[in-house]
Amino acid sequence: MVRSPLTTRDTRQVTSSRDAASPAHAAPVAPAWFERRRAQVDAALAADLKIRESGTTSHSRLLEAVEYSVSSGGKRLRPVLVLECCVAAGGDDAAGLPAALAIEYVHTFSLIHDDLPAMDDDDLRRGRPTNHKVYGEAVAILAGDWLLARAFERLGDAPPRCAAVLSECLANDTLAMIEGQAADIAGESTPPNAELVRFVHEHKTARLIRAACRMGAIAAGASPLIEAALSEYGLSLGRAFQIADDLLDVLGSAAATGKSVGKDAARNKQTYPAVFGIDASRAQLMHCIDAAKQALGPLGPLGGRSANLSELAGLMAFRDR
Amino acid sequence: MVRSPLTTRDTRQVTSSRDAASPAHAAPVAPAWFERRRAQVDAALAADLKIRESGTTSHSRLLEAVEYSVSSGGKRLRPVLVLECCVAAGGDDAAGLPAALAIEYVHTFSLIHDDLPAMDDDDLRRGRPTNHKVYGEAVAILAGDWLLARAFERLGDAPPRCAAVLSECLANDTLAMIEGQAADIAGESTPPNAELVRFVHEHKTARLIRAACRMGAIAAGASPLIEAALSEYGLSLGRAFQIADDLLDVLGSAAATGKSVGKDAARNKQTYPAVFGIDASRAQLMHCIDAAKQALGPLGPLGGRSANLSELAGLMAFRDR
Repeated sequence: MVRSPLTTRDTRQVTSSRDAASPAHAAPVAPAWFERRRAQVDAALAADLKIRESGTTSHSRLLEAVEYSVSSGGKRLRPVLVLECCVAAGGDDAAGLPAALAIEYVHTFSLIHDDLPAMDDDDLRRGRPTNHKVYGEAVAILAGDWLLARAFERLGDAPPRCAAVLSECLANDTLAMIEGQAADIAGESTPPNAELVRFVHEHKTARLIRAACRMGAIAAGASPLIEAALSEYGLSLGRAFQIADDLLDVLGSAAATGKSVGKDAARNKQTYPAVFGIDASRAQLMHCIDAAKQALGPLGPLGGRSANLSELAGLMAFRDR
Repeated sequence: MVRSPLTTRDTRQVTSSRDAASPAHAAPVAPAWFERRRAQVDAALAADLKIRESGTTSHSRLLEAVEYSVSSGGKRLRPVLVLECCVAAGGDDAAGLPAALAIEYVHTFSLIHDDLPAMDDDDLRRGRPTNHKVYGEAVAILAGDWLLARAFERLGDAPPRCAAVLSECLANDTLAMIEGQAADIAGESTPPNAELVRFVHEHKTARLIRAACRMGAIAAGASPLIEAALSEYGLSLGRAFQIADDLLDVLGSAAATGKSVGKDAARNKQTYPAVFGIDASRAQLMHCIDAAKQALGPLGPLGGRSANLSELAGLMAFRDR
């Protein structure tokens, strides 16, 4: 049974995408291919972080804090997108994996820093205490820093023909994300503002999701046409993802989302529901989903190699976390 | 007149390296070539940060905070080293400049985060209030993050043949620096410990200075022999630099150094003076300086293209800030 507070559409349309083997208590709506990709990413992350510097243990708490946040079972949306876009563009998993790890490190860095007391001051993330609640602020700040640097180190394993381009792409959209977070915090003392909320969504969220898709295309050695199509897909998907996030903060439950809800309104955040209302936000969400699907046109007929990506866009309307 | 609390040697030996045209009130001991390089770096940094994203100004405070710290007139040791090592290894300034900017951004990021209340809680840096004292903690954290990402974006301007190698080198030694900072903070609750202070010095300081020298060599397209020689030079120079820093915190003045002094002892930091005493620390400083000079052997006879680098190593004994 698929339930989501985000849509009033008939939910039966995506029921078929559920993996029959998935346990009944698994809350997220995720098709079997996504779960396989997520397991692949989880395994790669665990293996990557096992390679520890030997010798002194004076910074072992730092690496423990890094592992705490990386292994906390996120959706892995961004690395899954890297791998799926790489394959959709004709590449293989091995080419996409360094970029997949790198983007999850950047994402995890941003979560750790966003949760800090000086920023969003969150105690709960993915159902567990936030990094600074467990390891203290100093270690949490350094763990975020470490993950950001590690992301760029990891790209050293990418195919030499594209490592530098991947690095520049990731750096560019990471800068956008940080600028979006700054605008998000500054926006707490500003009345709801359509231009500002669009800036925050695009910079804080959509650009890094676009980077995931673009990096997948670059790793595959895709043509400029395919790279542009996947970038456009990623940007629309990222917008949809963040509108869904805003709606979940109003309509979702802490039990399902694994993080505090109702915090956006409490902090006077610039969100789609605050600026446009719930119904218009749902309509915008559907519009972004359609735009994402349409962007996939250059990859060929539906049901072909971009079928998973198209399905994933549709699922944004059915998020419950 | 050259004065430094760091040495008991006859100070006249370096008097000749002073630029006759430098103003009498200029405290630092810096030869004319270094000042020219520093001016070159300052101009490049100012030009690089002028290219701002147009549109919304919701994150303009972030970019203001970035500029505040980057333009605060540091020694520019690391970018000067990139350029000097690049030239010493047969390259030109244009090849070295992206790496020079990148490493100064990483260094500035580390200063902003190290000064935060949760870390070293410093109010004064380069004679001015620290970033978070002016812009608040949230913006200071994000300004550091932004600079770290910007460093890797900037390497996209490096010669394509070496951009990926530069990126991996910088990422690797940035990780070491962050691990060193974590060990430094953890070391505050540990008795003075020779192994620990060596780990902190090497990771927190020497590795990034080594990266500066190595990146200069890589940007020049140097042979493995020359790259290894400049790396070794940088590591010894970095050790000397940090021992001098420790000594200045005991023996220097806030007016000359532009930052608070006596803070290491107050915070129970792992320092060379705390672990080995002042005299043994001075001896270690001299030993590292000699090692740095000797590492330059493969670059040819003294007075040749590595003369500036050799002179710079000698000046570590005469720092007053």
